Amino acid sequence: MVEHKRIPADILKRFVESILRRSGLSEKDSAIGADVIVTAEMRGVSSHGVVALPGYVTQILKGGINPDSDIKVLAENSATALVDGCAGMGQVVSYKSMALAIEKAKKSGACVVSVKNSNHLGACAYYSMMCTKENMIGITLSNAAVLMAPTGGAGQLIGNNPLSIAVPTGIGYPVVLDMAMSVVAAGKLFNAMKAGESIPEGWALDDMGRPTTNPADLYSGGTLLPVGGYKGYGLALMVEALAGVLSGAALTVDIAYFRGEPEKPTGSGHMFIAIDIASFMRIDEFKSRMDELISRMHNAPKSPGVDRIYVPGEMEFETYEYCKKHGIVLPESVIEDLRELGKAVGIVFTG
Amino acid sequence: MVEHKRIPADILKRFVESILRRSGLSEKDSAIGADVIVTAEMRGVSSHGVVALPGYVTQILKGGINPDSDIKVLAENSATALVDGCAGMGQVVSYKSMALAIEKAKKSGACVVSVKNSNHLGACAYYSMMCTKENMIGITLSNAAVLMAPTGGAGQLIGNNPLSIAVPTGIGYPVVLDMAMSVVAAGKLFNAMKAGESIPEGWALDDMGRPTTNPADLYSGGTLLPVGGYKGYGLALMVEALAGVLSGAALTVDIAYFRGEPEKPTGSGHMFIAIDIASFMRIDEFKSRMDELISRMHNAPKSPGVDRIYVPGEMEFETYEYCKKHGIVLPESVIEDLRELGKAVGIVFTG
Repeated sequence: MVEHKRIPADILKRFVESILRRSGLSEKDSAIGADVIVTAEMRGVSSHGVVALPGYVTQILKGGINPDSDIKVLAENSATALVDGCAGMGQVVSYKSMALAIEKAKKSGACVVSVKNSNHLGACAYYSMMCTKENMIGITLSNAAVLMAPTGGAGQLIGNNPLSIAVPTGIGYPVVLDMAMSVVAAGKLFNAMKAGESIPEGWALDDMGRPTTNPADLYSGGTLLPVGGYKGYGLALMVEALAGVLSGAALTVDIAYFRGEPEKPTGSGHMFIAIDIASFMRIDEFKSRMDELISRMHNAPKSPGVDRIYVPGEMEFETYEYCKKHGIVLPESVIEDLRELGKAVGIVFTG
Repeated sequence: MVEHKRIPADILKRFVESILRRSGLSEKDSAIGADVIVTAEMRGVSSHGVVALPGYVTQILKGGINPDSDIKVLAENSATALVDGCAGMGQVVSYKSMALAIEKAKKSGACVVSVKNSNHLGACAYYSMMCTKENMIGITLSNAAVLMAPTGGAGQLIGNNPLSIAVPTGIGYPVVLDMAMSVVAAGKLFNAMKAGESIPEGWALDDMGRPTTNPADLYSGGTLLPVGGYKGYGLALMVEALAGVLSGAALTVDIAYFRGEPEKPTGSGHMFIAIDIASFMRIDEFKSRMDELISRMHNAPKSPGVDRIYVPGEMEFETYEYCKKHGIVLPESVIEDLRELGKAVGIVFTG
């Protein structure tokens, strides 16, 4: 039995903020980093929540993350910017880069910001959702440390590069897609391995590129399978081109895994796109059209055994609202890690 | 045995052009339409090739396509445009809209063009590839007639909305992704049904939303399954928002199927994005970075039984080159349809 504890969101956020502050980030950047991390936690995306914090702090201590850097705009056009992340914390670099895209899109109607020399950015949905608060559509892409093979290949040669799209609505929450290009996340294989369970065929290949049901194969040269076979591989490669090639970032095997090489920046690249709805349509008209689309999905006839049909981001929104009211549920082991982390920088975690 | 015949590409293109010209399109628009259709055929994407031509001509004759309309720009910002397709032929509307995106991106660095009141646009890859010829990245999205259910649902409620991305390279052909959001195209089920064969589980659901291996179920209220389950449904919904909601186009069940209701425009919407590489990086540097990425995929260790690893668009490029040299192979039944079509407008098909 894993023990769980319920922590109020504001207490967890203040704790993460203090940790980042003590690790050398400015007050403003600590607040940004904490908000991105705790929002992921509240949305139920715990793989990008506080469980990642010890890794980030190690990166700061070992030099992979430069805590007091700022982003630098290297080139600009009316609808574009090229940004050097200067090895800052990925969440902070990404927040500032999307903020720049939004600012520029307010004038030009749309903006594409390309970012290099960044670090692990956590959950992409956060940055896309920054746009929906401004009545814009937000798109976030990132390349990532290698985990998959190209279709027909063997060995870790491309990341399960995430894509997120967020669209404003009139129903109280945005529609938000945030997906990686693998069938499942690596964490599912890690958990299965720890539990001594096998995995279904279709999740992973072994080091020779053969189908496997042994989760441990991922950790001896195997790979995650891309979602939808060659379609997922194709999407991952295009995200690598858009987020990695165009920005001048590290590509595929040159990206450092933040937990494995904390002394190096991951070097990963991102793309942030902001599209201002007002350049196309009155925002109230747009929202009522989105609401109609959502209601058509919600009201679809249901398959046997299905109670409810969701749109992307709906479950995460409900989890977020629940956590806001009732606190965030964390396993005792994660809390223990946070206590340790706090101790190391002289903060008592009261959660 | 299906008989096949080999037709020189230029002869096929001239024939399609004449058909469109006789159907009322201008000389310029006929040339555009023919190039889009025959390019799809040459790239091996025969579902969007000449097999679709009789349907388009019927639409023109019955009023669904207005052959002598032009696109109208309804709103503009430095990096955006909203276009009314004015019920023109989808291929012509799309060509002109992407040309507008490219023209504007030359100044602003990037441009998003949103299109409503269009028709079936054929293979999206064509428009994305218009960008690569201008050293830009091209992205094309479209909503489409309903074919899929939302995850957990039953009945045709959302299209398998295509997404295409094309990126220039230095190796003689662009990398081009062009994918629909269903596991397989509807044509595969049609062919299986005609052949009296069953289909694998995972391709389709019946009218109650239950898994099926009977391809005929698609034609009695069943649905195609989205690629990667909820990920493909999520992608399809976001494409509907970007291409359909933002443009003011018809949405989901309001989109007419061009073969089923030829007297109506499909009313579908598109989004075209052009990103000018020069705003971010020297084009030769970009291309050599892409070439390095491609070579990492090509040189991946191979799974047992695999001879070669491809990047998206590579097979289609080789098919295109082959057809340019040796002609296009068409089944005798398709040629017969083309002959009939020619006769109806007074042209002899000499292919």
